[in-house]
Amino acid sequence: MSTHAQSTTRSNGARQEQPPTATQSRRLLVCRVDGRFVSKVDPEHISEIIKQKDEFVWLDLQDPQEQDIALLRDEFKFHPLAIEDATRHHERPKVDSYDGYYFLVFYAIYYDQQKNRLRTEAMNLFVGANYLVSVHTGEIGVIDETIKRWQKNEEEFGHDAGALLYALLDAITDDYFPVIDELADRVESIEEQIFERFSEDALQDVFGLKRDLLSVRRIVAPERDVLNVLIRREVPIFERNSILYLQDVYDHIVRITDSIDTYRDLLSSALDAFLSVQSNRLNQIVKVLTIASIVLMSDALIAGIYGMNFDYMPELHWAFGYPWALGLMLVVGVGLILFFRRKRWL
Amino acid sequence: MSTHAQSTTRSNGARQEQPPTATQSRRLLVCRVDGRFVSKVDPEHISEIIKQKDEFVWLDLQDPQEQDIALLRDEFKFHPLAIEDATRHHERPKVDSYDGYYFLVFYAIYYDQQKNRLRTEAMNLFVGANYLVSVHTGEIGVIDETIKRWQKNEEEFGHDAGALLYALLDAITDDYFPVIDELADRVESIEEQIFERFSEDALQDVFGLKRDLLSVRRIVAPERDVLNVLIRREVPIFERNSILYLQDVYDHIVRITDSIDTYRDLLSSALDAFLSVQSNRLNQIVKVLTIASIVLMSDALIAGIYGMNFDYMPELHWAFGYPWALGLMLVVGVGLILFFRRKRWL
Amino acid sequence: MSTHAQSTTRSNGARQEQPPTATQSRRLLVCRVDGRFVSKVDPEHISEIIKQKDEFVWLDLQDPQEQDIALLRDEFKFHPLAIEDATRHHERPKVDSYDGYYFLVFYAIYYDQQKNRLRTEAMNLFVGANYLVSVHTGEIGVIDETIKRWQKNEEEFGHDAGALLYALLDAITDDYFPVIDELADRVESIEEQIFERFSEDALQDVFGLKRDLLSVRRIVAPERDVLNVLIRREVPIFERNSILYLQDVYDHIVRITDSIDTYRDLLSSALDAFLSVQSNRLNQIVKVLTIASIVLMSDALIAGIYGMNFDYMPELHWAFGYPWALGLMLVVGVGLILFFRRKRWL
Amino acid sequence: MSTHAQSTTRSNGARQEQPPTATQSRRLLVCRVDGRFVSKVDPEHISEIIKQKDEFVWLDLQDPQEQDIALLRDEFKFHPLAIEDATRHHERPKVDSYDGYYFLVFYAIYYDQQKNRLRTEAMNLFVGANYLVSVHTGEIGVIDETIKRWQKNEEEFGHDAGALLYALLDAITDDYFPVIDELADRVESIEEQIFERFSEDALQDVFGLKRDLLSVRRIVAPERDVLNVLIRREVPIFERNSILYLQDVYDHIVRITDSIDTYRDLLSSALDAFLSVQSNRLNQIVKVLTIASIVLMSDALIAGIYGMNFDYMPELHWAFGYPWALGLMLVVGVGLILFFRRKRWL
Amino acid sequence: MSTHAQSTTRSNGARQEQPPTATQSRRLLVCRVDGRFVSKVDPEHISEIIKQKDEFVWLDLQDPQEQDIALLRDEFKFHPLAIEDATRHHERPKVDSYDGYYFLVFYAIYYDQQKNRLRTEAMNLFVGANYLVSVHTGEIGVIDETIKRWQKNEEEFGHDAGALLYALLDAITDDYFPVIDELADRVESIEEQIFERFSEDALQDVFGLKRDLLSVRRIVAPERDVLNVLIRREVPIFERNSILYLQDVYDHIVRITDSIDTYRDLLSSALDAFLSVQSNRLNQIVKVLTIASIVLMSDALIAGIYGMNFDYMPELHWAFGYPWALGLMLVVGVGLILFFRRKRWL
Repeated sequence: MSTHAQSTTRSNGARQEQPPTATQSRRLLVCRVDGRFVSKVDPEHISEIIKQKDEFVWLDLQDPQEQDIALLRDEFKFHPLAIEDATRHHERPKVDSYDGYYFLVFYAIYYDQQKNRLRTEAMNLFVGANYLVSVHTGEIGVIDETIKRWQKNEEEFGHDAGALLYALLDAITDDYFPVIDELADRVESIEEQIFERFSEDALQDVFGLKRDLLSVRRIVAPERDVLNVLIRREVPIFERNSILYLQDVYDHIVRITDSIDTYRDLLSSALDAFLSVQSNRLNQIVKVLTIASIVLMSDALIAGIYGMNFDYMPELHWAFGYPWALGLMLVVGVGLILFFRRKRWL
Repeated sequence: MSTHAQSTTRSNGARQEQPPTATQSRRLLVCRVDGRFVSKVDPEHISEIIKQKDEFVWLDLQDPQEQDIALLRDEFKFHPLAIEDATRHHERPKVDSYDGYYFLVFYAIYYDQQKNRLRTEAMNLFVGANYLVSVHTGEIGVIDETIKRWQKNEEEFGHDAGALLYALLDAITDDYFPVIDELADRVESIEEQIFERFSEDALQDVFGLKRDLLSVRRIVAPERDVLNVLIRREVPIFERNSILYLQDVYDHIVRITDSIDTYRDLLSSALDAFLSVQSNRLNQIVKVLTIASIVLMSDALIAGIYGMNFDYMPELHWAFGYPWALGLMLVVGVGLILFFRRKRWL
Repeated sequence: MSTHAQSTTRSNGARQEQPPTATQSRRLLVCRVDGRFVSKVDPEHISEIIKQKDEFVWLDLQDPQEQDIALLRDEFKFHPLAIEDATRHHERPKVDSYDGYYFLVFYAIYYDQQKNRLRTEAMNLFVGANYLVSVHTGEIGVIDETIKRWQKNEEEFGHDAGALLYALLDAITDDYFPVIDELADRVESIEEQIFERFSEDALQDVFGLKRDLLSVRRIVAPERDVLNVLIRREVPIFERNSILYLQDVYDHIVRITDSIDTYRDLLSSALDAFLSVQSNRLNQIVKVLTIASIVLMSDALIAGIYGMNFDYMPELHWAFGYPWALGLMLVVGVGLILFFRRKRWL
Repeated sequence: MSTHAQSTTRSNGARQEQPPTATQSRRLLVCRVDGRFVSKVDPEHISEIIKQKDEFVWLDLQDPQEQDIALLRDEFKFHPLAIEDATRHHERPKVDSYDGYYFLVFYAIYYDQQKNRLRTEAMNLFVGANYLVSVHTGEIGVIDETIKRWQKNEEEFGHDAGALLYALLDAITDDYFPVIDELADRVESIEEQIFERFSEDALQDVFGLKRDLLSVRRIVAPERDVLNVLIRREVPIFERNSILYLQDVYDHIVRITDSIDTYRDLLSSALDAFLSVQSNRLNQIVKVLTIASIVLMSDALIAGIYGMNFDYMPELHWAFGYPWALGLMLVVGVGLILFFRRKRWL
Repeated sequence: MSTHAQSTTRSNGARQEQPPTATQSRRLLVCRVDGRFVSKVDPEHISEIIKQKDEFVWLDLQDPQEQDIALLRDEFKFHPLAIEDATRHHERPKVDSYDGYYFLVFYAIYYDQQKNRLRTEAMNLFVGANYLVSVHTGEIGVIDETIKRWQKNEEEFGHDAGALLYALLDAITDDYFPVIDELADRVESIEEQIFERFSEDALQDVFGLKRDLLSVRRIVAPERDVLNVLIRREVPIFERNSILYLQDVYDHIVRITDSIDTYRDLLSSALDAFLSVQSNRLNQIVKVLTIASIVLMSDALIAGIYGMNFDYMPELHWAFGYPWALGLMLVVGVGLILFFRRKRWL
């Protein structure tokens, strides 16, 4: 199945390059029966620890190496397919139910202010009754944060996989809101530009924004399904109370999906409005062109007529021939303008 | 979880600023077994009162302070998630079912005639078998109104949470209708302008109207789901008769959703019609430009030819050279116009 | 709840004014056990009559007054919400199930040839096991017709609420077909105009037609749901055979909804086609403008050059200078036309 | 209900005129227990024959007359609603389940090469355990064909209503494929024209094709539902094996619906592409117009200046005044063209 | 039913010609109880082998001839409909459930770099508890590959139809990813061109890309349904573990469908953006045309006026008449440009 992993490395809308990182790290933390946290544990003992239902293990693998993957296979006895999914990149958010544990893929989304673009990071989670394994590439801030919170107030999260998963997902989805705010600001700024000067840059921004909304939606929509599965199905490994908390994360994600759809609607409206405004302005411009052309060409025709070289052109010899010609031009010009005004072209 | 509340304060399509209000108020009203209403009750006794199934408590918190929230936590024993939702802003309409009570978020919508924009106010409700807690920021007229109606005809609402909730939701949704009427008027006025003079202001109005319809829809659509949950599920805390009444509120909301969708369709049609009209008019204008240009340029060419300075140009010396030239211009001009008329361009 | 009724009087897409009508009428008809029809019955006895399961009552209220509504409340004991819905205007089609009876709202649709617009009339029906109450404003032809048919062939409809309801709904939906035909004719006439001369009037008609299709759809779509409820649910007050007949009405409404959707699709296609045709023609016109401008301006430039007043311009003194200039114009003009023809602009 | 039939005669998207045909015919064929086919049977005996479960009757009614309809009513005891549907025109495809038999409406679709338009023929079928009644207007080839196949290999179809129905529906749907191929050819030909010369005729063809696809879809989509009903529901009158065959017809219809949707998508894409191409070309043309106008008008202005009649214009008396003027024109013209090329307008 | 096969040969969006191939081949491979593979087996013995539940047969038919089809009919006793589907072309992906085996149609998709177009190959599979029959036209690489993998590691796939089917479908869907990558590259290249120079070739490419995305979607969407059926339904012929693997293929296909939908959205956005850009540029160009025309025509009018031949034109005799005229032109020209700049046209 190794060929498989290779052939799919590039296949995702938002492709990311993964340079070999120096940030590779493995953290193993065990919460003992008495609530004490132990971090110096021999990984080879994991399989024994997780058999004791009153101890809780969190293993965090950043840029996992071969020996890390061996742990997943040999100590946790995870299904090869789940391990493959966790180490392969560019899965979409999903939840797979295996015997005694769940495998989840969730995404952290950041807005990179400098590069002015979205960055997404996959987080792969194995959640069992008394263990949680997180696998990811690169540093993900919410993991450190959640581990710290776990170590501080053990009475709340202690040995409950559901509560810990909630804390993690809640932290991830909380980070979505500033991203949405950023997108909202950009939508608003575009809306303001439509009826003002609207350059091609703004159009490029509309298009980029559509892309970004689309890629956030692509992540958030399946995450909603993931949470739906966790809430609806009887999940024996979570305490009943955890469902209420996961419902809360679900509500957040529904709200974000809602906002994204609204912004997409607003962007479409903005583009429609822009086209209408442009069409309106084009009509105005062409009207001006038409009226000016007709007036100027009519006057030029008069000038041209009196510039003809016929031997017998009585007006040329009139004393007031010149003012007569200028007056004629004025009358014709003003007359045409009044005519177009009566036709409501002006 | 305090960081959470902060990070989400801004994340909603229709963002509102909340200046520290001087309108903070707390009202506590108890309907005794005998139907008498008592308002001077020590809040510390709430937990005892609600244990007596034949008394009914309404607690209204406007811009709740720390000690108000303590009441929710200590006296009512509400779930921390529900309390957080109630005091945090910008939730979308929803209903969460907890043990023994429901937590609802509903929205009042007003049309601010002066600022010519929509204003929405969230109302958070905890509904138990014999209590109702309303939490909101700023004054919401329907709450005072409903409390007054409750106090007047106690035989109808007395101790029935369902009937009271109906009265409140019915009052809120009744206030939607004038908003919809206002939007309907604006849609109608736009429709009338399309085939008349249609300025950029009208286009701006179309866009603003789309926004408003979208934001009403965003509130009303999830409210429909909320009512659906209350009607469909067996809600043990309501008397069976209440379902019929909630069905009535549901019907109103379905009707409003229907109207909004219709107005959105009509607006889209209006914009399509506008683009077609513009395209039609552009064609007319360009036709006029084309015909006038060709006629005037042809005549100007004739004048230019007879303005050339060749030594030998027989026409210049004709007695009727000048009328000949003018006549030629006339013939060419009329001929071209007839030609374009035959091609149905005029 | 009186405030409620007032606040909603205007809130519906198709608003209708209701002047105080002189057509107010109340008809009460009882079909006795032996099949005889009695029309002179004291309304105060209705409650007794409907207790006898072998008599059948039809009460028709046109523009009901206070005392009529009292009958619904006191004799039939209808639920206040249902009575309110029946006397309030602008409900959408719906069916509500109460204990022992159904409350239905259905709409008659007419095409007013003179005013060239649709007219809709709500019909509110209470259907019990042995009674049918119809409440409406203004005269609705199908009611008289159905009452006459009921009185004529009592063996078919006699005491069967389902059969009578079928006869009424069948008559109403039959009246939809001429309306649809009228709309179909208008769609067809628009389609024919697209590739012919297409004025702004036609565009206005497209828009009006879209409105009409939308408002028919708004009525017919929820009516389909109403019939679905009557067919699917076990309706104990109807005989089993009636379901087959209601299924027939359902089929008609599905067919009408289908037709409306088709016409809406066709109208959209027509508008798309119109825009394409306009865009095509604009290109043609601008091509003509461009080619004519270039040819005429080039020739005018030649004339302008030979109209310059330089002392030394050899051509001016050529014997064939004048024909040379005209020939040059001809060559340049024809050359340009051939060039544009080769570029397939002509 | 006679008024009903009249009022609906015209109400269908694809309306067809039905002149009184001379092709009226009635065919009655009975397959005896021993497999022999008998065609000379007294229609009055049908009711007796179909009581014998081991005989099979096929009655085909083309343009049925009053006495034919009497057979349906008196011999087969069909429900009046079903008989009305079978003899009324312009039903949409449907299946109604009655006691002991099914009533189906299916459509044959032909492409009339000469008139270049679609022709549809309704086929009404009553299918019982041991009889099949087909009612239609005009000749439908597949019926003769199926009857012949039935008579030839009795071992396969003999007394099995399901197998016979399959043979008939399979023959009808097989005839859809050449129609789809015809439409596919037209779609392809339109696609090819888009980037070539695209006249208004092609636009008219796009529109006609959309109409045709819409009307095929309108027939095929409900037929899919019909087959879904026959497959899903337990149909006691068919042998279990027949379901597999009907599934095959269902697959065909799904494939056709799929193709139609694809062609509709492609047509929409084609129209979008056409609009983009037109918009692109308009820009090109207007650029040419603009550049040519500016160059020619600039040169004409130079010529105009040297055509002025001032007493003191030094250039006019230069020896190389004339070449100077021509050179100036050339320089200005070339300069402008280079300028526009640098702005990438050319 | 032979007429049937003929009449449907052409009816599919992506039609392919099938010249008589020289690549016809039949491969029969039996995996014995002991895990040994035997390839020299008399096909006439298949029916006996597959009765022994511990032997596993794979029969691969490439461009099957009459005697191959006889094997399917006589040895495997497949249903005639399934055999017909397997040998007829242009079925869409589907799964049919027969007694004891499944019939599947799946598609391999390749991107033909040289011809720059997609190529699809149908693979028809009969899957029983201990046999797998693959029928296809032309060589399909993944079949050879899967057979080789099967022969190598018999411990994994040995006698499990589910595992073998997974290996095959996984190989097929793996080949989809490079196709999607190719399409993604083309979408990206189009996006880049929009705001740059966008020729008609690019528009043609947009259209071709839409076609390709549509035809991939047409294959992948029903394949998702096929896998859904295999996963959801209790499939007695597969071991329970296989479901997890098929779920993995299902995930891949969902991801591909997702990507296709995203690319379709992006293409639509791109086209919308293109139209907006074009509309924007047209406005710019027409503005330039209008301003240049007005300036040049105004100046030309001045030149024309001083080119008139009136006897009494005082300016003509001014010493600075000529500079005066040129100055007037300059003032008028600059004035107009300033005027348009103030109106923000420039």
